[in-house]
Amino acid sequence: MYGAGDVRIDDVPDPRILEPTDALVRITRSCICGSDLWPYKTMEASDEGRRMGHEFIGVVEDTGSAVTTLRRGDVVVAPFVFSDGTCDFCAEGLHTSCRGGGFWGAGDVDGGQGEAVRVPLADGTLVKLPVPEDDALMPSLLTLSDVFATGHHAAVCARVAPGKTVAVVGDGAVGLCGVLAARRLGAERILILGRHEDRTAIAREFGATDVVAERGKAAVERVMELTQGDGAHAVLECVGLEDAFKTALRITRPGGAVGRVGVPQFEALPAAVPTFLNNVTVSGGIAPARAYIEELLPDVLEGRLEPGRVFDRAIALDGVPDGYRAMDDREAVKVLVKP
Amino acid sequence: MYGAGDVRIDDVPDPRILEPTDALVRITRSCICGSDLWPYKTMEASDEGRRMGHEFIGVVEDTGSAVTTLRRGDVVVAPFVFSDGTCDFCAEGLHTSCRGGGFWGAGDVDGGQGEAVRVPLADGTLVKLPVPEDDALMPSLLTLSDVFATGHHAAVCARVAPGKTVAVVGDGAVGLCGVLAARRLGAERILILGRHEDRTAIAREFGATDVVAERGKAAVERVMELTQGDGAHAVLECVGLEDAFKTALRITRPGGAVGRVGVPQFEALPAAVPTFLNNVTVSGGIAPARAYIEELLPDVLEGRLEPGRVFDRAIALDGVPDGYRAMDDREAVKVLVKP
Repeated sequence: MYGAGDVRIDDVPDPRILEPTDALVRITRSCICGSDLWPYKTMEASDEGRRMGHEFIGVVEDTGSAVTTLRRGDVVVAPFVFSDGTCDFCAEGLHTSCRGGGFWGAGDVDGGQGEAVRVPLADGTLVKLPVPEDDALMPSLLTLSDVFATGHHAAVCARVAPGKTVAVVGDGAVGLCGVLAARRLGAERILILGRHEDRTAIAREFGATDVVAERGKAAVERVMELTQGDGAHAVLECVGLEDAFKTALRITRPGGAVGRVGVPQFEALPAAVPTFLNNVTVSGGIAPARAYIEELLPDVLEGRLEPGRVFDRAIALDGVPDGYRAMDDREAVKVLVKP
Repeated sequence: MYGAGDVRIDDVPDPRILEPTDALVRITRSCICGSDLWPYKTMEASDEGRRMGHEFIGVVEDTGSAVTTLRRGDVVVAPFVFSDGTCDFCAEGLHTSCRGGGFWGAGDVDGGQGEAVRVPLADGTLVKLPVPEDDALMPSLLTLSDVFATGHHAAVCARVAPGKTVAVVGDGAVGLCGVLAARRLGAERILILGRHEDRTAIAREFGATDVVAERGKAAVERVMELTQGDGAHAVLECVGLEDAFKTALRITRPGGAVGRVGVPQFEALPAAVPTFLNNVTVSGGIAPARAYIEELLPDVLEGRLEPGRVFDRAIALDGVPDGYRAMDDREAVKVLVKP
């Protein structure tokens, strides 16, 4: 990406092993993330550009001398942050704060929207998948890289539990995965706040019991009506805009929690006082996807959950610029890339 | 209180039983709260005035026909919000959101800085104390009404646990009680951020291991230095000013939590983005003191903890106006009132 709206396909040098802990991965599935749309809308023009993509599945082509758990031919999924798996933060399940970790597409690390990637800290980062590289489950497995793990993080941080009433703010791919994660964690009632009928239809299939199509104040009123004036125990904020965040805080039941995973496009969290009187907890942040992959994997592998339904378009690498446009224009929920 | 700085002692009609669930309580100990200082600084002048005081211990003088757990002569402590003890919020331990509850000194309910109070929902609200009305433990028992319960709430919301590093922002009575609560919950290291040496001396006796006398950016740097650059697992925000809150967020370790109990004197919680990247949780709010009294009582009754040390001045009712002044001028940490 060279600036807002300016996505190009470039030839770059092939990645190679630089550290003994690296692996080389040939990418078989990648995708475009809702969070990629923020720079797509706002990035300043740049001559160097920025390598994009942080969600991928691929096949290990080579490994550094210190890599012990992977070998050539392994099919692997990568979480959207790489991590060593050995530091105290990783041990606590907060791989996004790993002492040795980092982001794809930064420095000399490749982005996922490409043909191949040098994976630092391969033993800690990659999770081997017990399926062939063209398995039909690939779309759902790919969501473990970010979007389903992120929806799950929102649900965990919002303290979703059996019997709870949950509200999900946002009907993008993360919001839809939030619905699925909330159902998986036993929520009794799941309200989705979204106004795109094609998306809320998926939300219903994922387990949403009520759709709130209103926005702003009217949405708050509708949620209160649906919850006898109390609000939802657990609210998943899956947008990142200030208005969505305000709505999330206002529809949280006293003593409840907001699990926020929308990358905040604002400076300060609104409503300090009402949340104080209501003892509303604000939790969440960038999702430590790596911490959740093993837990979520069986439900995907055994077909009980199908988060891959959030992909409604598949393209080759040369279709990536138009894929950004389609997601930005709300023509597509989430675009799968097959390099 | 008739306005900022304008506290008067007035004769008012004696309270009487209005509802069958009421009790009449003669107040034997009351106090002035740090939160009373906010209206003391800012309240608009008013002809009607406002009855003050929300922390008290007293003796039951009479009970309504529906009161079953209390009788004349019982010594009782009141949490700073009254509550029915039977609704779903009370069952969840969030008595401050009780469906039937309310605040002292509002409507036809008396304030605690007086001689007697009509206590609504007496069975749900009052906790009987197994001591005589002039027991030497009275100062410590009185802190269960608000200030120790509030410090404990901050510690619970900040997820203090054995082995954790805790930072307490603010050396007022709540901050000091937060130190005591953190030690009680097993914190390994407790940093207090405060610059009043008389207060931080009490904090050390309460269990603080380090005193950070710096403010603002220098305080953040000092905490980071003391925690090898990581910050504290649990941060107790016991002030309520925006700068204190910013400091709290900045000194929280990734994955950690801020337990906030300072009544916020600002609109929005700062620092949406850094807390997102660090997965910092913001929890807390007005403390459901009633939920904690039975848990905290044995340590006070058996003398293991002495939260009453936060009181450094005792006055009669006619000393209340000067008591406000003394606390506002930082001459006194917390003022006990013996009507």
